[in-house]
Amino acid sequence: MQKIELIHTPALLPYYNLQDKTVVVIDILRATSTMCVAFNTGVNKILPIASPEECKMFKDFDFIIAAERNAMKVPGFDMGNSPFEFENPFLAGKNIAFTTTNGTKAIKMAKAMQPYKILIGAFLNITALAKLIQDLNKDVVLVCSGWKDKYNLEDTLFGGALIDKLLPNFEMEDDASLSAHCLFLQYQDNIESLVRKSSHAQRFKLLNVQTDDVSFCLQQDLYSFVPEMEGEYIVNISSAQAC
Amino acid sequence: MQKIELIHTPALLPYYNLQDKTVVVIDILRATSTMCVAFNTGVNKILPIASPEECKMFKDFDFIIAAERNAMKVPGFDMGNSPFEFENPFLAGKNIAFTTTNGTKAIKMAKAMQPYKILIGAFLNITALAKLIQDLNKDVVLVCSGWKDKYNLEDTLFGGALIDKLLPNFEMEDDASLSAHCLFLQYQDNIESLVRKSSHAQRFKLLNVQTDDVSFCLQQDLYSFVPEMEGEYIVNISSAQAC
Repeated sequence: MQKIELIHTPALLPYYNLQDKTVVVIDILRATSTMCVAFNTGVNKILPIASPEECKMFKDFDFIIAAERNAMKVPGFDMGNSPFEFENPFLAGKNIAFTTTNGTKAIKMAKAMQPYKILIGAFLNITALAKLIQDLNKDVVLVCSGWKDKYNLEDTLFGGALIDKLLPNFEMEDDASLSAHCLFLQYQDNIESLVRKSSHAQRFKLLNVQTDDVSFCLQQDLYSFVPEMEGEYIVNISSAQAC
Repeated sequence: MQKIELIHTPALLPYYNLQDKTVVVIDILRATSTMCVAFNTGVNKILPIASPEECKMFKDFDFIIAAERNAMKVPGFDMGNSPFEFENPFLAGKNIAFTTTNGTKAIKMAKAMQPYKILIGAFLNITALAKLIQDLNKDVVLVCSGWKDKYNLEDTLFGGALIDKLLPNFEMEDDASLSAHCLFLQYQDNIESLVRKSSHAQRFKLLNVQTDDVSFCLQQDLYSFVPEMEGEYIVNISSAQAC
């Protein structure tokens, strides 16, 4: 039976082996949720980038440039990291160079560890994601992006939700998976109430973020496609379609 | 109000600041549980050491030498890491040089980060520990020893149990604390059933460990003292007394 492992933060990646495994990168608030929105809008491809400085250079190569640090849009960029920004129909057919505090870092680190595939996970596409993982039939590693190398609640809770969809065809290999699944079972009927208590939801409140990004990102199965890495880019191999 | 943070594994210590904080090192299965047993038996002091090679040298300086790797006693040492070994009355008044896979490593790493105090935490002394933390009245960081730099269930579950005793006089500062507390609330009446599912309990089963170390280490409040670091040693400042 194929196995599931869960990694709470990119800082722990060096202790794992990703070779020949399906890797799901998770940044619920907000990078991986926002990427799903972008592909639903019709974005062509997304280039994940480590630093804002490097990201800015891609403006010269006809990319839309998007950068977030500390939950805020970085000044001088076209866009930040709110899912609502990525609903703009102007983005259809465009390429985006994208850097965020946690999510794009996790993707870059996982990429360097030669996994079989890197999939982009969010509540917005959770059922399609679970189906694809089962079809691929490889051991799976769920990589939570966390917050600045520390644990966060919403990514782990999503990990637990995804594990719940993979059982009993997959088995949990480690305590981190077991614990994430326990957390999900406890809060499955109250996901938003728990996430509202998280550090990141509190951060949005302190920053007076006007859009309700938390509620938006916790919606399940708005989309039936799964973005994935192809070379250095994130693409949507299936044609993007809203459910 | 004083704050609580929880760190899942020593590998994440570099992302935290321990200065002027009370640090609790937690290795439920088994190093910190076993240290409590040792002081109840009347051990004089314990020297935590990083490697078996270094630990062995202390045999020449009239120490009892104890070493565990991968849940087994290391050949050539006086003792391993089972709490039952440390109940031997022969140990009264003795000094022990001690190295384990996770717990002594976590202690050594935390020590290098200049905390206010390092306390040794276990279910065996949880109520005394909670009282001491409150008396010290500093921000507190709970450092789980994990398993080879990865998350483990039993240390986090204990963190949640300790947090439950510290609330509402302390407040949870991070998602890791919040999540550990959720896990404890869910399993507080079934702690052993959850820990039996953990990787480490499974490891004991595979290794055919004969003593029931899991049940022993989950007993609450056998002791009313709290071992702590003093210089390079772990000592029991209060006189050891069984409840």
